[in-house]
Amino acid sequence: MSRLLRIDTNKRTFAFSDMGAYAGMGGRALTSRLILDEVPALSHPLGASNKLVAAAGILTGTAAANSGRISLGAKSPLTGGIKESNSGGLFSQKMAKLGIQAMVFEDKPEDSAAPVVVVVKADGVSIVEAPELAGLGTYAASEILLAKYGSRAAVMLIGPAGETCRLAASVQFTDPKGRPARAAGRGGLGAVMGSKKIKAVVVDDTGATGVPVADKEAFKAANKRWVEILGSHPVTSQGLPGFGTSILVNIINEAGALPTKNFRFGRFDQAADISGEKMVELMQARGGKPKEGCHPGCVIQCSQTFVDDKGGYLSSGLEYETVWAFGANCLINDIDDIARMDHACDDLGLDTIDMGNAVAVAMDGGIIPWGDSKAALTLLRRVGDPSDSLGRIMGNGAKFAGQAFGVSRVAEVKGQALPAYDPRSVKGVGVTYATTPMGADHTAGYAVCQNILKCGGDVNPMTKVGQVELSKNLQIATAAIDAVGFCLFVAFAVLDTADAVQVMCDQIAAVTGKAFAPGDFLALGVNTLKDEIAFNTKAGFTKEHDQLPEFFAEPLAPHNTTWDFTPEELQGAKVS
Amino acid sequence: MSRLLRIDTNKRTFAFSDMGAYAGMGGRALTSRLILDEVPALSHPLGASNKLVAAAGILTGTAAANSGRISLGAKSPLTGGIKESNSGGLFSQKMAKLGIQAMVFEDKPEDSAAPVVVVVKADGVSIVEAPELAGLGTYAASEILLAKYGSRAAVMLIGPAGETCRLAASVQFTDPKGRPARAAGRGGLGAVMGSKKIKAVVVDDTGATGVPVADKEAFKAANKRWVEILGSHPVTSQGLPGFGTSILVNIINEAGALPTKNFRFGRFDQAADISGEKMVELMQARGGKPKEGCHPGCVIQCSQTFVDDKGGYLSSGLEYETVWAFGANCLINDIDDIARMDHACDDLGLDTIDMGNAVAVAMDGGIIPWGDSKAALTLLRRVGDPSDSLGRIMGNGAKFAGQAFGVSRVAEVKGQALPAYDPRSVKGVGVTYATTPMGADHTAGYAVCQNILKCGGDVNPMTKVGQVELSKNLQIATAAIDAVGFCLFVAFAVLDTADAVQVMCDQIAAVTGKAFAPGDFLALGVNTLKDEIAFNTKAGFTKEHDQLPEFFAEPLAPHNTTWDFTPEELQGAKVS
Repeated sequence: MSRLLRIDTNKRTFAFSDMGAYAGMGGRALTSRLILDEVPALSHPLGASNKLVAAAGILTGTAAANSGRISLGAKSPLTGGIKESNSGGLFSQKMAKLGIQAMVFEDKPEDSAAPVVVVVKADGVSIVEAPELAGLGTYAASEILLAKYGSRAAVMLIGPAGETCRLAASVQFTDPKGRPARAAGRGGLGAVMGSKKIKAVVVDDTGATGVPVADKEAFKAANKRWVEILGSHPVTSQGLPGFGTSILVNIINEAGALPTKNFRFGRFDQAADISGEKMVELMQARGGKPKEGCHPGCVIQCSQTFVDDKGGYLSSGLEYETVWAFGANCLINDIDDIARMDHACDDLGLDTIDMGNAVAVAMDGGIIPWGDSKAALTLLRRVGDPSDSLGRIMGNGAKFAGQAFGVSRVAEVKGQALPAYDPRSVKGVGVTYATTPMGADHTAGYAVCQNILKCGGDVNPMTKVGQVELSKNLQIATAAIDAVGFCLFVAFAVLDTADAVQVMCDQIAAVTGKAFAPGDFLALGVNTLKDEIAFNTKAGFTKEHDQLPEFFAEPLAPHNTTWDFTPEELQGAKVS
Repeated sequence: MSRLLRIDTNKRTFAFSDMGAYAGMGGRALTSRLILDEVPALSHPLGASNKLVAAAGILTGTAAANSGRISLGAKSPLTGGIKESNSGGLFSQKMAKLGIQAMVFEDKPEDSAAPVVVVVKADGVSIVEAPELAGLGTYAASEILLAKYGSRAAVMLIGPAGETCRLAASVQFTDPKGRPARAAGRGGLGAVMGSKKIKAVVVDDTGATGVPVADKEAFKAANKRWVEILGSHPVTSQGLPGFGTSILVNIINEAGALPTKNFRFGRFDQAADISGEKMVELMQARGGKPKEGCHPGCVIQCSQTFVDDKGGYLSSGLEYETVWAFGANCLINDIDDIARMDHACDDLGLDTIDMGNAVAVAMDGGIIPWGDSKAALTLLRRVGDPSDSLGRIMGNGAKFAGQAFGVSRVAEVKGQALPAYDPRSVKGVGVTYATTPMGADHTAGYAVCQNILKCGGDVNPMTKVGQVELSKNLQIATAAIDAVGFCLFVAFAVLDTADAVQVMCDQIAAVTGKAFAPGDFLALGVNTLKDEIAFNTKAGFTKEHDQLPEFFAEPLAPHNTTWDFTPEELQGAKVS
């Protein structure tokens, strides 16, 4: 039923194949296994040997709540290691309903080739030259594409940053309103797509047969309980729907872990100006919408439509990490300009976390003044001009900007910039930053849960005790969740609900018709991580790469915590 | 007698110490051991934990012919691994005569600190703020310093590229005419010096006691034979003095191994225009000087004064690798403009090999047209403007330029660009590129000798047979030569002369008063390489980093050779 769709981007041909050795796999498990099997680990990430894989999760396309995520996989141009970058939006469910578990983009054409659009429908696949889309922002391009291919279509596409192979280029996905505001942001996978001259992939599931469910009654029962679980936990039923992810601004600031001025301090004295509470207040006053979902079947609804003081659209999917990256980390407290920067990143196709760090590095290097939101916005937008060298630098992310500007204070692991939690005061997530095969990534093992939010346990964020085990367990669980296609935010409820893992397993078993127990769920996560570590080892990564930058030995105010793990201690967080 | 001079660049203090555990060591053996012992392998190369070591060779400062080289060592900002970069000029002999075996520059000041000049004389050391030198080219700065400190002084200094921490920044040294035309070019050590805010080090050996020689008669006899050896080999007595290193242009072109158009072809149809023969013809017609040495005691005299058609100075120390880098590799055949680019690199403080590769990458990325020497010169000079983003990109070398311009065809190993011999048709030197701890570096094991010049043996350059063993043996011998302070060009004569190694050992024994046999010479090389490999292992390097870029699998015209070593085969070239 489910198939692989392979696209030869050089010959502009395609072929369907059955899943073969990949039968039953989905999401991150599938992308990582395919990359491990088929991409030479030492190949150039922008060369013909790299592949871009877009995979739907095991449950994606079914009615399972919050199961519509997509996993993109490739060798990362940013880290040089394996990468899975995960997004919401409509694309994944539609792809799955067409019976396509994954699309695999192979080879690459000449650099002078025109960009193409791949159109995937129930009645076939076409690969269409689209020179008219070259250089367009994702908002303009997706509007043209949805006008042409109809509002039932969903689009996965890159902006100018991906087309010019910027190392921080994202792949964007359209949401239920047709806005390309959902991003597989991390690791520069937009550059891989750009190197293959794919501007966009359009998928339309009109006439699709949908994802078959082996045991419909069992599935219905399990999903009912699943919705109850998500609907009764305070984070997934109140915090996230009420204030979006930016509810964390005040919480993390209070905890003294909100990285401020390029990770110099743990508190930002203007945090209230950029908080989730402030955003909701503004949206209510201005006519925005504080509560939206990014795909059908989402019961959490953490997204929003954020508008300016005239009611004009500014951005959507404006996450805590983005608000932090352009806010506290750059000493910027203008939430409207932060929303404009988020929009610029979505439109140019850039990862907001790496870009926020890059702006802070530019401020550290004296390129623009600290706290100057207008200058930061101008700087970001320069990435859209392919002949602008400052834009070329910024679009390659924080580490590259540091080397360009002579700034050695760059918060990155394996070349990928750190997210919005200072590892000195949320040590569990620091362990994840250091040890995940992905490079610094909070979503790979979100110990903020137990360290700060006290979901699924209570682990003091400021001491080393228990952090390594915590991170390891979360990395395993996360890899499994990413394979199933669930939104990571289900984890808040799962961690606090005794039967939640069993209920996830029941849904999988009901859909596939094969037994699936919590042990299988665990194995799914472990095996995925093993594949990723195996790839990185073949690519030359060692335990020496599992480190935070040396400046994290500086004490962090207000708690004066330092990063104090030994390399040996950190290795305990890796599966073996 | 010999001492270490440690400079605290933050506190601006200095201290002499005896050699302690480093007694008897010199040159590359000393820099690599010190870096291994004292620099944390995972530290940021531009951070306070890195150190810059400048060491004289074991024989430097004595009358031993061609023994005046200096070794600079640090963790490389370009490769992330250990680096020894080697130069001629007057500095090393004067330092040695003052009884200083090595200077060690430690810690770093605030980024806002003014640059300083360190002045080292027989009567003491001073550290002087020199804001007036900030941003000056090395020609202007060395002229000011030699006017101030006298013509008996020698200068080691950086240009604007080092001051702005460009990854391809060199450290320049003045020659007998006071020109800063000698370079420790590779690996970005100028950026390490710049990060420590050292603009220049001036050394004046007036009143120095000189290097003591334990057995003067034995030394005299050995050195007499040494001069005979160097004076009777055709390469060191005729080829290099007659035509400089650019005698290789026609030879390597004929061999089909002159990398042309960013390593696309093995022959350049305009090679004759940039050959050593052509340069000599022009110098003779214009009033230049084709034959000069870079330090007293040189009996090879491979340098020159190259002038324009009005007799005006263009450059000195214009080496084959530079002529190739800006010439054949960029399809440029204007030798005068190539000399201007060499001068620009010396003046800005940039490595010509990485910059020539970076210009070729810029041409591949459409930044400037192929073969346009004026555009290339303008592009290079932009590195001198610290606010010019295109200059920032170029000054970070070829790999960085590739990432900035979206060009995946970059000839580099461990981040360092390849020199002037295509590894597909000089396979022995290709093995060296892949496996030396230095990143791609012909001087680390110059198999061109046996592959092309047929000195010290005859190994077919186009098959794999014998190359791994050849490269390994040359890497060992080279490390020893670099430790003694000899110019690498002595190797041509040494390889073809039965008693040459014994004569080198006799000189060392006569100077130190301790027995030194050929086995000790071998051990010197092996131990130095072991130190370097140990550092790199701690820095996260594995055998996966000992690889050439994948595009070398393409056949190279005219011989249609490919790079065909397996990773396992290459490991045989490393000492263990």
